[in-house]
Amino acid sequence: MRIGIDAMGGDLAPAEQVKGALLARSLLGPRDRIVLIGDERRILPLLPGPRKWQDYIDVRHAPQVIGMDEPPVESLRAKPESSLAVMAEMHRDGALDACISAGNTGAFVAAAQMRLRRLRGVHRPGIVIITPTFKGPVALCDVGSNVNCRPQHLHQYAVMAGIYVQTVCHISQPRVGLLSVGQENAKGNPLVRGTHELLRKDPGINFVGNVEGRDLFRGICDLILCDGFVGNVVLKLVEGMAEGVINGLVRELTANLTGAWGLLGSKIKKTAKTILNNYDFNEYGGAPLLGVNGICVICHGVTDYRGIMNAVRGAMVFAEKRINDRIMEMLAATRGAAHV
Amino acid sequence: MRIGIDAMGGDLAPAEQVKGALLARSLLGPRDRIVLIGDERRILPLLPGPRKWQDYIDVRHAPQVIGMDEPPVESLRAKPESSLAVMAEMHRDGALDACISAGNTGAFVAAAQMRLRRLRGVHRPGIVIITPTFKGPVALCDVGSNVNCRPQHLHQYAVMAGIYVQTVCHISQPRVGLLSVGQENAKGNPLVRGTHELLRKDPGINFVGNVEGRDLFRGICDLILCDGFVGNVVLKLVEGMAEGVINGLVRELTANLTGAWGLLGSKIKKTAKTILNNYDFNEYGGAPLLGVNGICVICHGVTDYRGIMNAVRGAMVFAEKRINDRIMEMLAATRGAAHV
Repeated sequence: MRIGIDAMGGDLAPAEQVKGALLARSLLGPRDRIVLIGDERRILPLLPGPRKWQDYIDVRHAPQVIGMDEPPVESLRAKPESSLAVMAEMHRDGALDACISAGNTGAFVAAAQMRLRRLRGVHRPGIVIITPTFKGPVALCDVGSNVNCRPQHLHQYAVMAGIYVQTVCHISQPRVGLLSVGQENAKGNPLVRGTHELLRKDPGINFVGNVEGRDLFRGICDLILCDGFVGNVVLKLVEGMAEGVINGLVRELTANLTGAWGLLGSKIKKTAKTILNNYDFNEYGGAPLLGVNGICVICHGVTDYRGIMNAVRGAMVFAEKRINDRIMEMLAATRGAAHV
Repeated sequence: MRIGIDAMGGDLAPAEQVKGALLARSLLGPRDRIVLIGDERRILPLLPGPRKWQDYIDVRHAPQVIGMDEPPVESLRAKPESSLAVMAEMHRDGALDACISAGNTGAFVAAAQMRLRRLRGVHRPGIVIITPTFKGPVALCDVGSNVNCRPQHLHQYAVMAGIYVQTVCHISQPRVGLLSVGQENAKGNPLVRGTHELLRKDPGINFVGNVEGRDLFRGICDLILCDGFVGNVVLKLVEGMAEGVINGLVRELTANLTGAWGLLGSKIKKTAKTILNNYDFNEYGGAPLLGVNGICVICHGVTDYRGIMNAVRGAMVFAEKRINDRIMEMLAATRGAAHV
């Protein structure tokens, strides 16, 4: 398959994007290729001699760049030659089988929706991310694609992200929770109440009911549904908190270590680093945008080469397991059942 | 002043409520009294000989209890003799100057709104909580009273919670942030965009702009505004995360300590406990419900006697600093300015 990487998107672009592409060789089969999309004047100097990469990497020049903070739709219109716009068009035209970007998430989602369109039957695409916890991985959907969710959207996220979690986490019947402000059905806002009804009635979903913020870390469900605004706040809170709490703990611990205990400081710092890596999204395979007619993997803005490599691996799994076909089959079955 | 404590509300009620009331003696002036409201058959056996408490505690019998998970409005209607309903009525009738409960938050908020009514000019009451971080305290409002916020509501929370933060944290011009999914003004949902406009135009508010989930831990603002659904998710996430991350870290650290290092295990556990206490809401003065015509302090459901004592202290500060008068003055000034 041909996997496009937006070489210009992300805080560390293009250096880490190029490095990730180079190191992804070990992941590729003989017929797989990576296409680096972006400003070739900035990409080519980062590559070694042509013989070292031309058998598995192509470079597609795209002179414009959409910045991390530009308004998504407007910037896509204003910059048709941006790496994101070109990559999405190549995917639409069959020149790519998957897209990866650590750039402006809103612009990536907008490009995917405008160029690739949605899968048949999908109301709104949604981003799913798998977050690590001490009780094992937990998936969260949507984490920022759809800030005006309706119950029907969240219901479809249960189906789509459920298939993804089944495949990636090898959980046959993922336990699905609905993020709310209380476990009681009566609580929550209209979105939660409406979604609760839909999930409760769907025998295809292993719905465990409403869950609260703290339940993210309790291992009581495998997939948590929420609208994109809440999901994005949660995602960033978890990142900031893991860093803040662990660094704070290390500071307190090592400050108290005097004399012979001081030797332990480095051991503590090392352990903390290992744990922080568990909360490091570079270690995971990016976050797919579910529901578009293609494969789009979103990386964290600060992703380094490891994140890019993991996204390449994620895109290959997504294709190999035919997740989009399974989503369409499942949505068609759900529609069929609703008509009975 | 007379401070009512719902003796029946909370996971550890009535034991911790009664203990907290007894130990609050040290906080009270000669004319202050505490009124324990609830089932006297359960309260009286927890009290020592009458001489030890009757000079500063009264017991008001209320035979019914509203459970933590009962629907707020319905349960208040069905249980007019519940401790929460009786306490709110006593406050309305002047028999109390403040109310404290660790029980069903929704029912407490509903009782306050129905019996005490709102302060003049207030659209919706909101709950403010001060959360500890390694960069100092951060206030969050609303954390669960209003799950259908409008921009006008959040604007008033900026005013009301701003006054509270000024008073309690001794910050003359609290930096106010609006919780969103991106720092750019164009991002966020309609609520965020509408609120951003109102805050930007109000010269009385030290508005630093939109903030993200991670900014809770960065010390870049003193007060973060969000609707009650998001705020409640955030609050519970922070609790669960602090516990999950720190316990996980301690587990990892101590598991690796063998031989002589093993001696350090208890030191690490002790430090972690100290830090967790920083995230323990028992240590803080409860969360006031701002905007009602009275003083209502909400405690966490698992509050122990320390949380009750801190809520008593919080209620006394609220009264002494005349926070409600200041809120009404400020809202009147804002209305006046809007008419100019």
